[in-house]
Amino acid sequence: MAAQLSVTGGGPGVTTDGKNTEHAMSIRTARQDATVGLHGPVTPAGRALLDRLGGHLPRIRSTAAKNDRDGVFPVETFDALRADGLMGATVPAELGGLGVDRLYDVATALLAVAHADASTALALHMQFSRGITLSYEWRHGGPQARALAERLLRQMAAGEAAVCSGIKDHHTAVTTLSSDGTGGWLLSGRKTLVSMGPIATHFVINAQTDVAGEPPRLVSPVVSRDNPGLTVLDNWDGLGMRASGTVDIVFDRCRIPAEDVLIRDLVGARNDAVLAGQTVSSVAMLGIYVGVAQAARDTTIAALTRRGAAPPAASRTLVAEIDSRLYGLRATVGAALTTADAVGADLGGDPDERGRRMMRAFQCAKLAVNQTAPAIVNDCLTLVGGASYTAAHPLARLYRDVRAGGFMQPYTYVDGVDFLSAQALDIERDNNYMSTWAARSQKTGNAKGVPQSTEMSR
Amino acid sequence: MAAQLSVTGGGPGVTTDGKNTEHAMSIRTARQDATVGLHGPVTPAGRALLDRLGGHLPRIRSTAAKNDRDGVFPVETFDALRADGLMGATVPAELGGLGVDRLYDVATALLAVAHADASTALALHMQFSRGITLSYEWRHGGPQARALAERLLRQMAAGEAAVCSGIKDHHTAVTTLSSDGTGGWLLSGRKTLVSMGPIATHFVINAQTDVAGEPPRLVSPVVSRDNPGLTVLDNWDGLGMRASGTVDIVFDRCRIPAEDVLIRDLVGARNDAVLAGQTVSSVAMLGIYVGVAQAARDTTIAALTRRGAAPPAASRTLVAEIDSRLYGLRATVGAALTTADAVGADLGGDPDERGRRMMRAFQCAKLAVNQTAPAIVNDCLTLVGGASYTAAHPLARLYRDVRAGGFMQPYTYVDGVDFLSAQALDIERDNNYMSTWAARSQKTGNAKGVPQSTEMSR
Amino acid sequence: MAAQLSVTGGGPGVTTDGKNTEHAMSIRTARQDATVGLHGPVTPAGRALLDRLGGHLPRIRSTAAKNDRDGVFPVETFDALRADGLMGATVPAELGGLGVDRLYDVATALLAVAHADASTALALHMQFSRGITLSYEWRHGGPQARALAERLLRQMAAGEAAVCSGIKDHHTAVTTLSSDGTGGWLLSGRKTLVSMGPIATHFVINAQTDVAGEPPRLVSPVVSRDNPGLTVLDNWDGLGMRASGTVDIVFDRCRIPAEDVLIRDLVGARNDAVLAGQTVSSVAMLGIYVGVAQAARDTTIAALTRRGAAPPAASRTLVAEIDSRLYGLRATVGAALTTADAVGADLGGDPDERGRRMMRAFQCAKLAVNQTAPAIVNDCLTLVGGASYTAAHPLARLYRDVRAGGFMQPYTYVDGVDFLSAQALDIERDNNYMSTWAARSQKTGNAKGVPQSTEMSR
Amino acid sequence: MAAQLSVTGGGPGVTTDGKNTEHAMSIRTARQDATVGLHGPVTPAGRALLDRLGGHLPRIRSTAAKNDRDGVFPVETFDALRADGLMGATVPAELGGLGVDRLYDVATALLAVAHADASTALALHMQFSRGITLSYEWRHGGPQARALAERLLRQMAAGEAAVCSGIKDHHTAVTTLSSDGTGGWLLSGRKTLVSMGPIATHFVINAQTDVAGEPPRLVSPVVSRDNPGLTVLDNWDGLGMRASGTVDIVFDRCRIPAEDVLIRDLVGARNDAVLAGQTVSSVAMLGIYVGVAQAARDTTIAALTRRGAAPPAASRTLVAEIDSRLYGLRATVGAALTTADAVGADLGGDPDERGRRMMRAFQCAKLAVNQTAPAIVNDCLTLVGGASYTAAHPLARLYRDVRAGGFMQPYTYVDGVDFLSAQALDIERDNNYMSTWAARSQKTGNAKGVPQSTEMSR
Repeated sequence: MAAQLSVTGGGPGVTTDGKNTEHAMSIRTARQDATVGLHGPVTPAGRALLDRLGGHLPRIRSTAAKNDRDGVFPVETFDALRADGLMGATVPAELGGLGVDRLYDVATALLAVAHADASTALALHMQFSRGITLSYEWRHGGPQARALAERLLRQMAAGEAAVCSGIKDHHTAVTTLSSDGTGGWLLSGRKTLVSMGPIATHFVINAQTDVAGEPPRLVSPVVSRDNPGLTVLDNWDGLGMRASGTVDIVFDRCRIPAEDVLIRDLVGARNDAVLAGQTVSSVAMLGIYVGVAQAARDTTIAALTRRGAAPPAASRTLVAEIDSRLYGLRATVGAALTTADAVGADLGGDPDERGRRMMRAFQCAKLAVNQTAPAIVNDCLTLVGGASYTAAHPLARLYRDVRAGGFMQPYTYVDGVDFLSAQALDIERDNNYMSTWAARSQKTGNAKGVPQSTEMSR
Repeated sequence: MAAQLSVTGGGPGVTTDGKNTEHAMSIRTARQDATVGLHGPVTPAGRALLDRLGGHLPRIRSTAAKNDRDGVFPVETFDALRADGLMGATVPAELGGLGVDRLYDVATALLAVAHADASTALALHMQFSRGITLSYEWRHGGPQARALAERLLRQMAAGEAAVCSGIKDHHTAVTTLSSDGTGGWLLSGRKTLVSMGPIATHFVINAQTDVAGEPPRLVSPVVSRDNPGLTVLDNWDGLGMRASGTVDIVFDRCRIPAEDVLIRDLVGARNDAVLAGQTVSSVAMLGIYVGVAQAARDTTIAALTRRGAAPPAASRTLVAEIDSRLYGLRATVGAALTTADAVGADLGGDPDERGRRMMRAFQCAKLAVNQTAPAIVNDCLTLVGGASYTAAHPLARLYRDVRAGGFMQPYTYVDGVDFLSAQALDIERDNNYMSTWAARSQKTGNAKGVPQSTEMSR
Repeated sequence: MAAQLSVTGGGPGVTTDGKNTEHAMSIRTARQDATVGLHGPVTPAGRALLDRLGGHLPRIRSTAAKNDRDGVFPVETFDALRADGLMGATVPAELGGLGVDRLYDVATALLAVAHADASTALALHMQFSRGITLSYEWRHGGPQARALAERLLRQMAAGEAAVCSGIKDHHTAVTTLSSDGTGGWLLSGRKTLVSMGPIATHFVINAQTDVAGEPPRLVSPVVSRDNPGLTVLDNWDGLGMRASGTVDIVFDRCRIPAEDVLIRDLVGARNDAVLAGQTVSSVAMLGIYVGVAQAARDTTIAALTRRGAAPPAASRTLVAEIDSRLYGLRATVGAALTTADAVGADLGGDPDERGRRMMRAFQCAKLAVNQTAPAIVNDCLTLVGGASYTAAHPLARLYRDVRAGGFMQPYTYVDGVDFLSAQALDIERDNNYMSTWAARSQKTGNAKGVPQSTEMSR
Repeated sequence: MAAQLSVTGGGPGVTTDGKNTEHAMSIRTARQDATVGLHGPVTPAGRALLDRLGGHLPRIRSTAAKNDRDGVFPVETFDALRADGLMGATVPAELGGLGVDRLYDVATALLAVAHADASTALALHMQFSRGITLSYEWRHGGPQARALAERLLRQMAAGEAAVCSGIKDHHTAVTTLSSDGTGGWLLSGRKTLVSMGPIATHFVINAQTDVAGEPPRLVSPVVSRDNPGLTVLDNWDGLGMRASGTVDIVFDRCRIPAEDVLIRDLVGARNDAVLAGQTVSSVAMLGIYVGVAQAARDTTIAALTRRGAAPPAASRTLVAEIDSRLYGLRATVGAALTTADAVGADLGGDPDERGRRMMRAFQCAKLAVNQTAPAIVNDCLTLVGGASYTAAHPLARLYRDVRAGGFMQPYTYVDGVDFLSAQALDIERDNNYMSTWAARSQKTGNAKGVPQSTEMSR
């Protein structure tokens, strides 16, 4: 029953599917230290989200293998989530949503979904994340931003909008916004790696302006799926995360009304305040990879326990190492989320330092996740043995899925090293990766994602 | 000024010595997420302790190198701490102490001390830890335990008692308590690795009874230093932690009155409830090794920053890796401490499961600390280069000090693997390492610390 | 041109496809220290094999992606290899083969093939390995073994026989040989993970006898594919190595004439001499995983070089780490092969110690390969970035293929730890894993591959 | 008896002190694959050296602890080695030496010495290395170099000369050679980290010229200890290698005759050919750290074996991991030495590529040694437990000694990453670290060893 759902009931090793009724008591006390390891939500809204999600997990879990094999996006799952009001989970209650406003709780929910199917969690993250960032615009933005955000949020709560972000340009194109001559804009370009694409109704993307006589500026247009110039490709064939609907979106002179474009900084502005929004937009995703590692661990412990015999030396050593690392991973990700929520809520100080603090914690945790979660899954295959090397084995899927973490923005490992070392060593650089990308495209004329330190190019 | 002290002011890289006035603002916001990484205390008493300690840190820091070289215990430092009321930091306010009752705050304080000198922190942990465990006896023990605890605690608060625990028997002896024939006891044996020994006034040790016709039982006698049969050896010459006064204590038919002996379980009782007390007794020590790692990191960043030139590729990579790992270490240890405080405070559930939960979190974190903290220090030597390979360099001391963590009980790596894997795989064993040691000594006639899984010996 | 082929031309980073004509000079000097890192064969026969293979590599390389995707065994490739005499590469020249008799040279050849396609190399290893072990029987076996071996070897040289070994029982069956009452045998059971199965003409398997009143004995029957009781399943769907034709073989009362059965030890005999043959049978496979790691490295360096810009800090660090580890991996595997060849050729000493020495070197190297090769491939994905996360990218295939190494016998990681630690600590155990499996099946009635230390089960 | 000495007799785990008579047979066969893991010399001269050294190992081993504690150079040991002709081990037989000319054999000998005492091996390496490099000058140099080399070599063989190299300038000084106005030179400056300093009779150092109107040039003056301007400081107080006599040498306008100065390249010449000599000069040192790791391993296995009880799970896992890594380390270092010998002996090709090949192999192996050897020692402490944390325990010394490896030139980790990644990615840079240092000192006016990529400073 959904109301009993807890992400884990007591330290490493407890599954998330609510079956462990024997842990009922420990679940209760676990609440007390839930804040330390994503073992449960920290707000009633987060609890409501997790409980309601619980009813969907059996379906998500049972269809994961087939969707992975076929590379099919689970439209039915998202229909059901929508019908249950969950596509508005992070929309403020005043606008009709569930009102989950803590990234910690979002990550806890995504962890539970990822424990059943990582692809679904990755797609769902799109919607949850948009809700959080749009809520910030609605609360703290200027009049135009507030109006735009409210419109989208109400549609999300009503189950009418599925909103994707599109960050990364396809390597063949620079996504630009040029004037349509009548006060509006024309959008052209191509975004890649847009999850949940198959059911998206809106795309909030980042682009740069191309206006004669003006320096390029970062902008965030919102594009409706029914825009005549927009095409959603069906081109995802990933090593993993195969059911996440991570597609390309092509824009061919899409007309965008002025009120649907949020104007950001000039390219190269070196505004660290934006790191706050970038953190908020992505940090909850870390919960997905914790969920994958936890799922691998639980599958493995179940398999070892079934064997019955006294486990050999190396098995015991690996099991202890896995549980220790998983504990550390949960604590680390939980810490970054707590920091994101706490620092993000404090608008009183220096906005640049606020952005850097949030991003530092995020990147420290992300680097750990991207190294540790795959290592845990890898050790799980070692423990389970040859059976896990067949395509249909759950661990084989997790082995592929977990590797996606390293490619999520911001940042990849290479860029994360540049950011973190620059922070430690007081090296001046443009920390806004969107600005860096835009500046690079100005030089090269395309979006070739050459990972190159901005401070090197000075 | 002591009142400004914060353990760190905002993420990895900020020193603990209060000099970073430029981080004053970020320190304020850091409080909000202090719970996630030992960046500050969580109670007013913890804050008071940290602030008061701040005044002592310059002396502790400046004498660390010489005390390490000479292997001398810093008696003057402890005199000053005592004069400042700090030897009663963890004594309840009702009994005259500072009233610090959270392990999280104890660890945060020890981290700050260890950042200046790890040996001092290790010795100080003895006193802080005794305060916490005796407070538990005072609050929750039977009449005899309460009386004994109150007596010691009042002396600690008054600066009259420095109380050590003695856990590990010397390999040549089994420490036993036999009847003196008049209702009291006679204690004989030898304890090793007793830190703060040079100034200790009392020793709370574990022993086993040797009474004809009765099965051996675990007991905790309290021995005064002025007991005629007691000898404090001056035999410490460690690889590191050389100023910690970690000596052997020899007991030669010490008379112990009955009221100074706490009676515990029969040897082999398999009582997991005791894991709670064992966790409380040792978990705050993890803060020491985090402090060592942080000190190494801060020393290194300062050295790199002084060089001025653009840092080479490997330096940037190592710096980012260090900061990520240190972030994770802080989060992980912080989580274990939060769990120890939260679960430890909840006396309503199954006491066995309470003990196991606290110990699982402790051991997961301890395994991480013992692997990661030395690795961080090692990388710092790599970054600083050959200068750090001279005996007088701070990093050379940290390289030796940090290695002590792996030898702290409970547990060593080998025993920790047995415990954690048994927990994950539901393997039945005696988790009370004192009971295991006692049982082994019954067989071998001495205390040879053969690390051997108890479940193997069935 | 094939005659120019060298496995690598000068340290880490040189591709194996013969295109690097600029390295012609360094290739020449590389010969001098070829023995240290699988950079070239050590015998003329090995050179002839490598040169002749060179002509096939373009096809193998160009069909690898499609065969992987479809999970199809490359029958045409093996037809071409057969037509070129390569299915008899390890058959003695006296029997019509190429006469390659050094495992070092076999591994060097497999490395080159694996650089193009690991699945093909894995299947080809079957044939090469059978040639080596049958040659040993032909030279050193008893009359029956010599006759059987000569028959098979001549057919292999003539391109008429493709000979697989079948080691691992399917978990549902114990493969047994019972008397047919007329001096021959009846074979029933099921073998799993038999590579090159689709084109195999013979299977040399291990089984145990089931004869009333006699203790079970290990035996090696040879079964022809046209045996009426034999079925080759088409059931391979691996996470990786998808074109290796790694299928199950079912035996349903196959009649086996007595002369086609080699009688081995009693189950439980503790005969370490057999470790020599087990090493010879499998150690060259390590070259495959070195080839996979080298291919990943070369693909990655090519991609980074194309980018042109100054590589970021983390990229340089990872590249140096990859090259250092790959160098070490080549040296380590080369050493184990040199030992296998040298010790294997020395039949004068204690056969048990000869077996253990060969197996110790093999297992030390295998443990390193199974940890390091996947780590190298993983870092390559990090360096190349998101593009490598699509199913069609070469690195995505290598990421899946390389993970197979850990599941190859003998041993898995868990069993390897038991073997190596027992060797170091003088722990007595049955080191013949086939004997251990058989003994276990006697207890359980099936072949459930519970990894369990034999010394634990005493 | 010395004649029985073998470095190891059969795979990991055999001690080097010749006591394992039970391994006599395996030692014989081990010779066959000695080339793969420094298990024995590859030339008769190398065998003679190892055998003769064997008689000195008991003294070296038995005095190691006290010399380490006191920081005293073992003058008596070197007197005995000299009396036995061993200070001329690497002097050509034609000049009166033992004629050891393979770096592989030098490393094998140093491994055996380091197994007894690493400090002694480090000092002895100075003499052995000078013999090798001076022999190269004697065979292949110009007339002046040949004469100078012959003079020194004859004295070394006669036991009259102990020759040190001095590479690294003290951070306060740039060592320069200026004209004395009469055709000779004046040398001023200060070298640091010169091992074997207490007994050195000559110093072959690197310096740069300071001649008005001429660009600075690298030079190698030879300075006699009795030069009036030379002072040997007694200033070594290392974290480890405390008995190695690693001191500073101060030059105050030392008069150096022209014939005692070898003229090298202009600073900044980018002459990769010199990498050959730099490799030859230092690569045998890798054997020292392998010896330290092997000593730690052997000490640990002996301790575990004495315990008798069944080893716990983590102990078995760590033991297997240690033996696998040690095997790999031996193979890797052996490979680099074989390459150094083979490529070094081939003077026919491109001298630049010859230099780079030798240095690539050296650096790949060095990076592995500097990461793996300390990791092995660290795990040994974990296995042995708290006893190893006392200053007098052999593992405590090894823990400190082994860390020296990372600071040996060429290169440190940071510089090694720059070199190896530049090689892989075809990045142009000055690979001569002496030239780089000199160029940097031209800019800064001192020798501050700021590790900074040369290609970054362009």
